[in-house]
Amino acid sequence: MKPKFSLSGMPDFSSSEMKKRKYVQSVIEEKFNLFGFSPISTSLIEKRSNLFGSYGEDGEKLIFQILRSGDYLNNVNIDPNTINSSELSPLISDKSLRYDLTVPFTRFIAENQSSITFPFKRYEIGSVFRADRPQKGRLRQFTQCDADIIGSTSLWLEVDLLNLLGSIFNTLKLNNLVIRINNRKLLEGIYQSFNSELSFSQFCIIIDKLDKIGINKVGGLLLNGGFSENDIGIIKDLFSLQGDFKSQIQYVLDKIVNNPHLDDGINELLFLFNKNNLSRYSIPVKLDVSLARGLDYYTGSIFEVVCLEDNIGSLAGGGRYGKLAEKFSLKNISGVGVSLGLDRLCIALESAGLFESFVQQDLDFLFINFGKKESEIAYSYITKLRELGRAAELYPDAIKVNKQMSYANKRAVKFVIMLGEEEIEKNKLTIKNMITGSQDLVSFEELTKSL
Amino acid sequence: MKPKFSLSGMPDFSSSEMKKRKYVQSVIEEKFNLFGFSPISTSLIEKRSNLFGSYGEDGEKLIFQILRSGDYLNNVNIDPNTINSSELSPLISDKSLRYDLTVPFTRFIAENQSSITFPFKRYEIGSVFRADRPQKGRLRQFTQCDADIIGSTSLWLEVDLLNLLGSIFNTLKLNNLVIRINNRKLLEGIYQSFNSELSFSQFCIIIDKLDKIGINKVGGLLLNGGFSENDIGIIKDLFSLQGDFKSQIQYVLDKIVNNPHLDDGINELLFLFNKNNLSRYSIPVKLDVSLARGLDYYTGSIFEVVCLEDNIGSLAGGGRYGKLAEKFSLKNISGVGVSLGLDRLCIALESAGLFESFVQQDLDFLFINFGKKESEIAYSYITKLRELGRAAELYPDAIKVNKQMSYANKRAVKFVIMLGEEEIEKNKLTIKNMITGSQDLVSFEELTKSL
Repeated sequence: MKPKFSLSGMPDFSSSEMKKRKYVQSVIEEKFNLFGFSPISTSLIEKRSNLFGSYGEDGEKLIFQILRSGDYLNNVNIDPNTINSSELSPLISDKSLRYDLTVPFTRFIAENQSSITFPFKRYEIGSVFRADRPQKGRLRQFTQCDADIIGSTSLWLEVDLLNLLGSIFNTLKLNNLVIRINNRKLLEGIYQSFNSELSFSQFCIIIDKLDKIGINKVGGLLLNGGFSENDIGIIKDLFSLQGDFKSQIQYVLDKIVNNPHLDDGINELLFLFNKNNLSRYSIPVKLDVSLARGLDYYTGSIFEVVCLEDNIGSLAGGGRYGKLAEKFSLKNISGVGVSLGLDRLCIALESAGLFESFVQQDLDFLFINFGKKESEIAYSYITKLRELGRAAELYPDAIKVNKQMSYANKRAVKFVIMLGEEEIEKNKLTIKNMITGSQDLVSFEELTKSL
Repeated sequence: MKPKFSLSGMPDFSSSEMKKRKYVQSVIEEKFNLFGFSPISTSLIEKRSNLFGSYGEDGEKLIFQILRSGDYLNNVNIDPNTINSSELSPLISDKSLRYDLTVPFTRFIAENQSSITFPFKRYEIGSVFRADRPQKGRLRQFTQCDADIIGSTSLWLEVDLLNLLGSIFNTLKLNNLVIRINNRKLLEGIYQSFNSELSFSQFCIIIDKLDKIGINKVGGLLLNGGFSENDIGIIKDLFSLQGDFKSQIQYVLDKIVNNPHLDDGINELLFLFNKNNLSRYSIPVKLDVSLARGLDYYTGSIFEVVCLEDNIGSLAGGGRYGKLAEKFSLKNISGVGVSLGLDRLCIALESAGLFESFVQQDLDFLFINFGKKESEIAYSYITKLRELGRAAELYPDAIKVNKQMSYANKRAVKFVIMLGEEEIEKNKLTIKNMITGSQDLVSFEELTKSL
């Protein structure tokens, strides 16, 4: 068996994969810039204490922890009879790989408050790490593309982020998507209208499992949490609501006793559905009362972009959050943001056939190596072609021409240039177009003029 | 005291810093492409066993090790009386952060041999990690830009890499640099002409300390290694050689008894100095017989780019290597490559004043928020401006205009657009040029025509 030197879920990308990724990333970055976001970059490693306590128990299990340097056991007293991994870890590890870009972002704000202009709009594209079981659409190192605004509670920001998503997916030509929208305040209003033993946070965690375990199991968990059979029936109906936004909201108002949270949630949703402007793109926006999003820190609008064909999880998600920054002594700062998954986007584009026009053509000119004297002249032409912005190289060794041609074919070179004794005598070059196969004898001046 | 949430040597980059980094990176990437290199990306995390055994004892101390997930102590028997950190680490850690891009590159080749066309030219730009003591020019997370060719021993590749460096530094307008060149074969020839108790590898490690500890301490180490006072005198003279390449080589030939290694080394250097073509750039290339480069795997040409003003270490380095890939069952594969340090390059450009023309101007249009009705019209214009490729945004809240103007100033917005009741009535916009201060009343059509 071939030895495997790489780790599963820790991806390498070949040159052709990199081209696709760079293309998708460039579309995202261009839109981020057009929408007024500026790039920042935060370190890949965070203090352990910055991450632990931010993602809940399930999240923490997925944080990669880094051993202290040097003799880390020096000041640690270990009783081998009682020590366990979770007690030992904080003693011998003080650093972790970042789990997302949101916590590093709030840490960045906390440390740079004095020089930041609020509302602060930043984007960041970078790797994040989760010690998860790898599967399709779930890597242990993956790339997130985040855009957030901190320091304003305006709903125009949600509208803008939805349009940002629409604009990105439109440019990428990804159809067959749906943007699911909900609001935590609406969910809280629904939650408050029923009696149960659950906290709102527990209620959200159960709802969030819907996609994974199905409506009946969610019903069971709610029953265990003290919801009545009748209430669960209403919730099931709410979660399978069809129709347009207005009829869905009417259904909610018919079934649920009004309360301030419900009112706030509906008003915010109304603003979004009236202003979102997304009809200019080909992506439907749907109210989905069952959308909860896992993380505890959301406080208002939440949204998610799902691919209707591929079962690879959400392509993007986001929402309005508060409290997140309290860990870093930042109080009353409201934020709203969106996060796109670059790896999943590439999977979706690949399976939609949207990468098919990508060709692996990166070298304009390959000069055949005919030996020392010829190579010297070739090299001076190569230098000039590069200065004209054309990618050019000399085949490094004077091996048989057919072997060099085979290399040219495999690398999908556009033009092969032969500069042998005969050409040198005539002060010309033989240029072979590798797509058409045609061959011409031209001077270097004629060649550069034709570029 | 302000609490510090970030780790020293683990850098964040603000938006203005990111612009500078992106500019430098784009120059490097453009040149890599022009010289025929294609991008790949390898994972940031490697199997522990891939890295340990590759960098020598001193290097290994700088590798960040990642704890196994889950209950990693479960199958480990610890005797607290005898266990030490270096014994425990391989039991509880199976992954490490990459230390450079070269080992991951050879691992990548080993795993993708069948689909790779040799000679294989790739570049990679990415973060590497070293658990070092941070100081100016030395971070614990830093960005390397590597270009390598694997699968040919042609000296034209060295020539090409030197020209690549020249072309990059020339475009970046970095002067006050020198490219130091040497050859491990020449060094081995010199080493062999003397009697000592040192291995060639030990000899190189001592020579490599020259910049740090000075010539006299190097002399002392050689004396301890069995070199005679007379030999050390010759070596000291060799290491302080001035003059041009020819006179330097003549000096070597006068002082050192010829041997095959010396001969090979001189011939390779001759090829490089004859063909390097670097006179078209403003960077001097100097033979430096004292250049050894730390890593054990170099076998031929070695080179280094040093800034003559800033004491921040080398900006780039590289050379010809063999054996490196044996760890991954790749035999007899010769490689040659160059590595540029993005962080140090940015320090050098900054202190040379080459970033001074960079302005923090990323937003073309800021629309003042005058309230709900006005914002709706503003938002439709914003959408159109973005579709025309202009970065535009609505200030999110309808606060006092002078506060919004202050935000526009701080963000260095190019144009502020006011669309109040009056403008709406006239179907016009008031545009304020934030650089000149001039103000105009124009229609949206007039505005877009002027773009």
